[in-house]
Amino acid sequence: MEIAHPYLLFLGDVHDNLAAKTALGIVDWRRDWCLGQIRLPGCEADCGLPDLTPAQAADQGTKTFVIGCVNPGGILPEHWVNSIVEALESGLDVASGLHMRLEEVPAIRDAAQRTGRRLFNVRQNNETFKTGSGAKRTGKRLLTVGTDCSVGKKYTALAMERGMNEAGFDASFCATGQTGVFISGRGIALDAVVADFISGAAEWLSPPADDDHWHVVEGQGSLFHPSFAGVSLGLLHGSQPDAFVVCHEQGRELMRGVQTPVPSIREVIEGTLSMGRLTNPDIRCIGLSINTSAMDEADAKNYLARLSAEIHLPATDSVRFGVAPLVTRLQEEFGTPR
Amino acid sequence: MEIAHPYLLFLGDVHDNLAAKTALGIVDWRRDWCLGQIRLPGCEADCGLPDLTPAQAADQGTKTFVIGCVNPGGILPEHWVNSIVEALESGLDVASGLHMRLEEVPAIRDAAQRTGRRLFNVRQNNETFKTGSGAKRTGKRLLTVGTDCSVGKKYTALAMERGMNEAGFDASFCATGQTGVFISGRGIALDAVVADFISGAAEWLSPPADDDHWHVVEGQGSLFHPSFAGVSLGLLHGSQPDAFVVCHEQGRELMRGVQTPVPSIREVIEGTLSMGRLTNPDIRCIGLSINTSAMDEADAKNYLARLSAEIHLPATDSVRFGVAPLVTRLQEEFGTPR
Repeated sequence: MEIAHPYLLFLGDVHDNLAAKTALGIVDWRRDWCLGQIRLPGCEADCGLPDLTPAQAADQGTKTFVIGCVNPGGILPEHWVNSIVEALESGLDVASGLHMRLEEVPAIRDAAQRTGRRLFNVRQNNETFKTGSGAKRTGKRLLTVGTDCSVGKKYTALAMERGMNEAGFDASFCATGQTGVFISGRGIALDAVVADFISGAAEWLSPPADDDHWHVVEGQGSLFHPSFAGVSLGLLHGSQPDAFVVCHEQGRELMRGVQTPVPSIREVIEGTLSMGRLTNPDIRCIGLSINTSAMDEADAKNYLARLSAEIHLPATDSVRFGVAPLVTRLQEEFGTPR
Repeated sequence: MEIAHPYLLFLGDVHDNLAAKTALGIVDWRRDWCLGQIRLPGCEADCGLPDLTPAQAADQGTKTFVIGCVNPGGILPEHWVNSIVEALESGLDVASGLHMRLEEVPAIRDAAQRTGRRLFNVRQNNETFKTGSGAKRTGKRLLTVGTDCSVGKKYTALAMERGMNEAGFDASFCATGQTGVFISGRGIALDAVVADFISGAAEWLSPPADDDHWHVVEGQGSLFHPSFAGVSLGLLHGSQPDAFVVCHEQGRELMRGVQTPVPSIREVIEGTLSMGRLTNPDIRCIGLSINTSAMDEADAKNYLARLSAEIHLPATDSVRFGVAPLVTRLQEEFGTPR
């Protein structure tokens, strides 16, 4: 799926920015793709964009109305439907990351048919995948992996894409989750793929490329998470990374949603190397990206320096201190781009 | 899903027994659930059952018409539809392991509505699963794992269920593939579950049970197969086995459908222990089940004895020599059942 931008971001009437984190993620990374936002009465989220009606947004060149928020339960409330229909009638496509398909709402389905506009359900995949082949593809790949879910794998991949391109690499981000799909306009919500096709979908996502092209693949879950390790392993095998970055949140003790302890960074490096060699014998770890937000800046720098000395790899907080040490390491390992 | 037996097995007009392997698997393990077979003109498969019409089968007490064969492409050919409609009109439910849903064929959907009979699509799951929790459940579990696909994991699990029950254990088979679902009348085709829910589905499949109950779980794929390792890992984490048996085909060099070498038995034991400990720290391997059909009997016995000495675990060919050594080892490790 290729979602056209610019976007108009719909925030509904959600009660905080957390419920609008998809919209905020899009603004963080693609501010220039976003012309405005729509907030219903009672909305307490704010992306800092101009408030526009669908008609105003269309006049300014908007292509897609993006549902950038989620209400409790993840379903589409009745009172959001009018805004969606209005967007379609103003000539916009509509994109959603909800679990349900937009077509399931008759008023939306009818409006899309009437206007000929497209409905994108990024949590669903219309694409038919093959099972993974395990065959080595041309081009290079970097994957972000995690000690847990929600430790900055998407952020780190996007920051690496930007940092690598600034350093002269030819890099492109590959989205594997819904927010990433909106940020890049394409990709796959990998957790919604049928189990048999996880690695095949990951192969499809980062196809053969020029020898010095880097696909920077957004990781999912953790090889050590009892709910999602299967997705993480299929993604590792299918993306066959040449390089990976381990993402971690300093101080987190239990993995999200379960009672299982967070694995050590060393375990994640060893496990990723050992399992990743199946489809890329030359896989290597190029560094760590750590969320240190619970520490003050001096403590964070000390902690990262200690960790780096211990693991013999660069360690940074990508949000706080940027990804330059990781990009430098990549240059050292794989050569400076021409 | 709970599929009612006795069954009437539909063999269509397939050209050999391989295309009817689902039906043959059912007869192997549940001969007493099968009252007859239906063969269309040109059929060259044979389950050795009486040929019955749906009406005759219904008179004899048959509950479900099972599509026990697959034609090239895995789709339902036009000329099979009449038999299915006739079965519904004779009062039988219809069960299919095809990728498509039976409801997609209007004549079948209409006949099912008209007669009130049920349609089972075992490759689809109507069940809604939770994501895996990783929490330890009561009861015990045995999982068959493989060096590859199609190395006897289903056969070994069924043979273990039978052998354990004969030895006084309280054991029940848990199907994770379509033939297994027909053989046990319930289960999940795990490869058809959405990726996010693999381990959750495996948890659902072997729920909390009495302390001395054993769920004997049919394995899928291999942790070392580049197409399917994600499914295998989710199943390992979700089924949290106390014991596992490694299945292998002697002499196979490449894994099915790919150019990746078959891993060693030792690698599979080590990998399964290391990853399985996440949800069951006490996981242990109790032996090997090897397909030795390429060897004569004397060579097979020598090979198994050598392997057993090397790995320090019992090694058998479950088809040729039975599972007694594995059941004995289970008794030694976990105690003799009361």
